[in-house]
Amino acid sequence: MSRRVYLDNAATTPIRQEVLDAMMPYLTSNYGNPSSIHQEGRVTRAAIEGARKTVAHLIGASTGEIFFTSGGTESNNMAIKCAVSDLGVRRIITSPVEHNCVKNSVEHLQSMHLVSVEMVNIDRYALPDLAHLEQLLSSSDIPTLVTIMHANNELGSMLDLEALSALCKKYGAWLHSDTVQTAGHFPINVRETPLDFMSGAAHKFHGPKGVGFIYINSRCHIHPMIDGGSQERNMRAGTENISGIIGLAKAFQLAYDELEEDMAHITALKDYMKEQIKGICPDAYFNGHPTHSLYTVLNVSFPPGPYAELMIMSLDIAGVSASGGSACSSGAESQSHVLNAIGHPTDRKAVRFSLSRNTTREDIDYAIEQLAGILAPGVHAVS
Amino acid sequence: MSRRVYLDNAATTPIRQEVLDAMMPYLTSNYGNPSSIHQEGRVTRAAIEGARKTVAHLIGASTGEIFFTSGGTESNNMAIKCAVSDLGVRRIITSPVEHNCVKNSVEHLQSMHLVSVEMVNIDRYALPDLAHLEQLLSSSDIPTLVTIMHANNELGSMLDLEALSALCKKYGAWLHSDTVQTAGHFPINVRETPLDFMSGAAHKFHGPKGVGFIYINSRCHIHPMIDGGSQERNMRAGTENISGIIGLAKAFQLAYDELEEDMAHITALKDYMKEQIKGICPDAYFNGHPTHSLYTVLNVSFPPGPYAELMIMSLDIAGVSASGGSACSSGAESQSHVLNAIGHPTDRKAVRFSLSRNTTREDIDYAIEQLAGILAPGVHAVS
Repeated sequence: MSRRVYLDNAATTPIRQEVLDAMMPYLTSNYGNPSSIHQEGRVTRAAIEGARKTVAHLIGASTGEIFFTSGGTESNNMAIKCAVSDLGVRRIITSPVEHNCVKNSVEHLQSMHLVSVEMVNIDRYALPDLAHLEQLLSSSDIPTLVTIMHANNELGSMLDLEALSALCKKYGAWLHSDTVQTAGHFPINVRETPLDFMSGAAHKFHGPKGVGFIYINSRCHIHPMIDGGSQERNMRAGTENISGIIGLAKAFQLAYDELEEDMAHITALKDYMKEQIKGICPDAYFNGHPTHSLYTVLNVSFPPGPYAELMIMSLDIAGVSASGGSACSSGAESQSHVLNAIGHPTDRKAVRFSLSRNTTREDIDYAIEQLAGILAPGVHAVS
Repeated sequence: MSRRVYLDNAATTPIRQEVLDAMMPYLTSNYGNPSSIHQEGRVTRAAIEGARKTVAHLIGASTGEIFFTSGGTESNNMAIKCAVSDLGVRRIITSPVEHNCVKNSVEHLQSMHLVSVEMVNIDRYALPDLAHLEQLLSSSDIPTLVTIMHANNELGSMLDLEALSALCKKYGAWLHSDTVQTAGHFPINVRETPLDFMSGAAHKFHGPKGVGFIYINSRCHIHPMIDGGSQERNMRAGTENISGIIGLAKAFQLAYDELEEDMAHITALKDYMKEQIKGICPDAYFNGHPTHSLYTVLNVSFPPGPYAELMIMSLDIAGVSASGGSACSSGAESQSHVLNAIGHPTDRKAVRFSLSRNTTREDIDYAIEQLAGILAPGVHAVS
């Protein structure tokens, strides 16, 4: 089998062996329904409550503020929609570079005439202009939800959550931040940096797909988005995805246990890759913020050329998995709404390489070699 | 370890080994995001589309009518809420014995003044009075959704889906049926017995928890309940729970491949258990319909006595897992809304025993022995 180098870890990551090991009992012998009062049920109920405690502890929340969902998308939908239905929110301030699950949730509420929507200006790295946000916040007393992502999934640029939190507090706005790309990758403490809602998806930090969590500040008295049984302390109905929840908590714990080590390893590889790309393509530039960025994501803007259109596919054929943007917009002919919003030239090709703790220097060398071949066919670089 | 006999299969079932085997590659090597266009993504995309085809085929639907969700509760929420938001439904006809996910979804919509709600009368087995339903349907031209469950999860009673389907067709009402207890347990063909929405949860038929499906008749043009990426053909956003979806399809296929055999095995055990219970407790009676019922569920009404209140717990201590009703209402002090609706006397104790393909005659013998001991302490029956 030919070599594969997976550089699309912002789309999804493989499950760690330790995580799968933790999940296995809940895929086999521990199958009870956590709502059942008999022994089989009590075993899984206790496991879920343990997982909740783990997640709460790692972000400085109370156990009663963590709820498990089917993933980051559901968590973000829930935060935004329930803030409007239950907290009296009538205005949403957001950014033009949010993930589709935030963007489309906001647009859905707007189309139902439930909220007015205002966009905060962004800079060339897609980071929000906080002075403009303050202007918007101070301009009206309408109950407002601010929903701005912690780090952009396509570019990697990461905002100053503390400053955002302080601004929302100052003007009494509710704050939701889509933290799907940062949860498990950066320290987040909701006590030190208060916000009302944050979200996480296990598969972004080497946990399983189909499970996520939402942090809901205890001051937010909302109703479930999915109605039914009293699961998740009456906040999210449906028999719990137990193996997924156990896997999420284990992956989250490991991610924070090994954060410094992983961060150093991945940052070094990203810096190395940046240098290598400059070496083979001096006209390339980088779309993410140079210092305030996900260490996992390197979004490169390649100069116009005949290779541009088919770049992701050429890389794939050469054994390198990368992305043109978020996974959700892959395959789309046109540029993503994020690239459009930062004014990325349409004749250049933006490629997102995203690394993980599994990525090696040899992976980067191989990717650079293939990239060089695609950029200058006939002059295939040999490493 | 002391013996455990698990008779709560209507709450949840263990995953079959063949199902877990089918899931494992998607928990390990096949980790790509199905929305990614590279090789890792194409592998999982193809697997999901294969699973969709399997499910569609088994219920006579088109592939484009099957969507994967996080479970039966989400599927039922989606059907009911989207019918109101997108199909112009302004009246819901339902029954007083629906699962909480249907009941609470309907009540949620009612509390928002989006629909009027009418209740169909039920008989002593909790089955709907179809003559009354026809009366309700014919009484108004308001666009109507009928949502009545195929089989009651607590009692087992199963309605005549064909008659229900014909009535709804006659009066032009939309039809949703919560089929969570029957999908994978009875043949269902949406072409022969048309309905607009049906639901399934993998963990009810030996698949994993945290994954379900919804059948949406192609005539229903609805929008997603969870907004975001274009997953599930733009109908349900969020990175797919791939291992769950593969497990669901495998479990569903196996369930139908072995349906006759399993049905015969379980029916014989249920009949045997019924006889045994009559033997040790002549005053017991059965709450489910004597002929139109889930073969997996035996709901027994035990006469008043000092043992009644703690019966589920006493059985648990003796090694037998059973339920007082649905898992969601376990632990509740009072009778379930289902038992109240059929006028079950509050001084009697209803216990739901639910069997599966794993249940053996020895399991039943053991359960009966323990039950006899609880009913008549001191006269402990020896098998």
